[in-house]
Amino acid sequence: MADRDVRIYEVGPRDGLQNETAPISTDAKLRFIQLLADAGLREIEATSFVSPTAIPQLGDANELMARLERRPGVRYPVLVPNRRGLERAQAAGADALCVFTAASEPFTKANINMTIPESIDAAGPVVETAREHGWWTRGYVSTAFGCPYQGEVGEAAVVGVAQQLIELGVDELSIGDTIGVAGPADVRRVVGALTGAGIGTDRLAMHFHDTRGTALANVTAALDLGIRCFDASTGGTGGCPYAPGAAGNLATEDLVYLLDREGLSHGVDLDALLVAARHISETLGRALGTKVGQAGGWRVP
Amino acid sequence: MADRDVRIYEVGPRDGLQNETAPISTDAKLRFIQLLADAGLREIEATSFVSPTAIPQLGDANELMARLERRPGVRYPVLVPNRRGLERAQAAGADALCVFTAASEPFTKANINMTIPESIDAAGPVVETAREHGWWTRGYVSTAFGCPYQGEVGEAAVVGVAQQLIELGVDELSIGDTIGVAGPADVRRVVGALTGAGIGTDRLAMHFHDTRGTALANVTAALDLGIRCFDASTGGTGGCPYAPGAAGNLATEDLVYLLDREGLSHGVDLDALLVAARHISETLGRALGTKVGQAGGWRVP
Repeated sequence: MADRDVRIYEVGPRDGLQNETAPISTDAKLRFIQLLADAGLREIEATSFVSPTAIPQLGDANELMARLERRPGVRYPVLVPNRRGLERAQAAGADALCVFTAASEPFTKANINMTIPESIDAAGPVVETAREHGWWTRGYVSTAFGCPYQGEVGEAAVVGVAQQLIELGVDELSIGDTIGVAGPADVRRVVGALTGAGIGTDRLAMHFHDTRGTALANVTAALDLGIRCFDASTGGTGGCPYAPGAAGNLATEDLVYLLDREGLSHGVDLDALLVAARHISETLGRALGTKVGQAGGWRVP
Repeated sequence: MADRDVRIYEVGPRDGLQNETAPISTDAKLRFIQLLADAGLREIEATSFVSPTAIPQLGDANELMARLERRPGVRYPVLVPNRRGLERAQAAGADALCVFTAASEPFTKANINMTIPESIDAAGPVVETAREHGWWTRGYVSTAFGCPYQGEVGEAAVVGVAQQLIELGVDELSIGDTIGVAGPADVRRVVGALTGAGIGTDRLAMHFHDTRGTALANVTAALDLGIRCFDASTGGTGGCPYAPGAAGNLATEDLVYLLDREGLSHGVDLDALLVAARHISETLGRALGTKVGQAGGWRVP
């Protein structure tokens, strides 16, 4: 991967939809995933094998994975919280797995009802099994820039959790600004601490939320630091559970516009991506609220 | 001004409101300006002495300036397009004037029905008179990053216009991404060309639009280059005439959040600014669409 190549890791079908309360059909989700692949996305987090009681919206994970038409060269990771989820994911034929923890104890407790050490223990056998099979793995570190319960999160806490996930053997870490509070100086501080602890930028993805409009500013700072993988959600799905009505995940179309303008390669076609964005917007029955969704790309008349 | 001090130049009352079609009372505008000053803004572009036929919304410039309660330490620049506007602005007691041109001929023609040389000629006597009186002056260079008619705009065109305004004697240039297409690489290219031509960053303000979500990314790049003055519009007023429904001016509250998070000083209080934002939002009868307007600042419960 050259220095001008950027990976866009699409989180819309999983992270983007998981908090939607109105049921979304498996058909609509599958169509969304196909349109994302049509647009050139090569990493699409498809669903989650959490308990259907905890997240009813993704309760169709078995059916979705069974019916998913996999394209060559496209990775479809799934979130797996524990052994039970691992068994379901294996049965569904998943070959790219994500595990989940956070840099803040009160968030981890509230979000998954575990301590951070317990969440690392839960992730252990998932990553171990994946490694035995040669599957790709990713570890999420949420609340790396701020926690809705404790406030500021120190970079030492991020490094501590990150190192434990690296020791488990994950291929990649996704460092998340779960509540969308970070600015570029925070990105420099946290990424600097991670690389200073020996974790290379090639193993780091950044997961920014645009809750306060800073996501692309943070991407800019992260690009300067050598980060080359960014999470984003087409159509801006996801919202922010801690700020109702506000934006959550960085919109993939906004990220693509910026990367195009920067002359960086990523393989995604903006027009085709906006087809996927409109599909999910219509599915959710909401107008497309992303900046590029509203304004379109730039075309001279 | 220390390197950690940033000037926020508020354009809401003029640039933000000028394209609103429903009449806004002079009372509501004056209240907006007072709330902006309450929030700590020290440069508030108040109105424009263009022809009331051209921009009816700002046809109350005489009355507004007559009734404006000026605070010590606050500058209230007004836009002045020509000699006639200069006479009106002088009679109204304005002591900070802005002149206007662009880096693209088709835009200048469509926007003010002049060629670029004609617009410089029109600005000449305005700046000359201002200098005789010791008034502060600013020159706007619009479409510095792209034009809705010609497309890309080369940095040489920006430098050419900028140098002519500097030769007239303006104190400051505001370099505008009028249609919101720039990314950080464009900012580095254009600012690099300007400073390379001998125009110091202390004479440059950047005027970014958030039409495609890149405004704060561009601010981040400009801060890295040493730029310390940014235009913004409280409540995100302004929109984009070339992309109906899309965002225009960078919202002041989004800029303030970023600068606060970066640890930079600017003198504006975010909570007080959101009071001004809500006032103008209610005046316009539209929900506050800015990111920080929706999410609020960050407070730990």
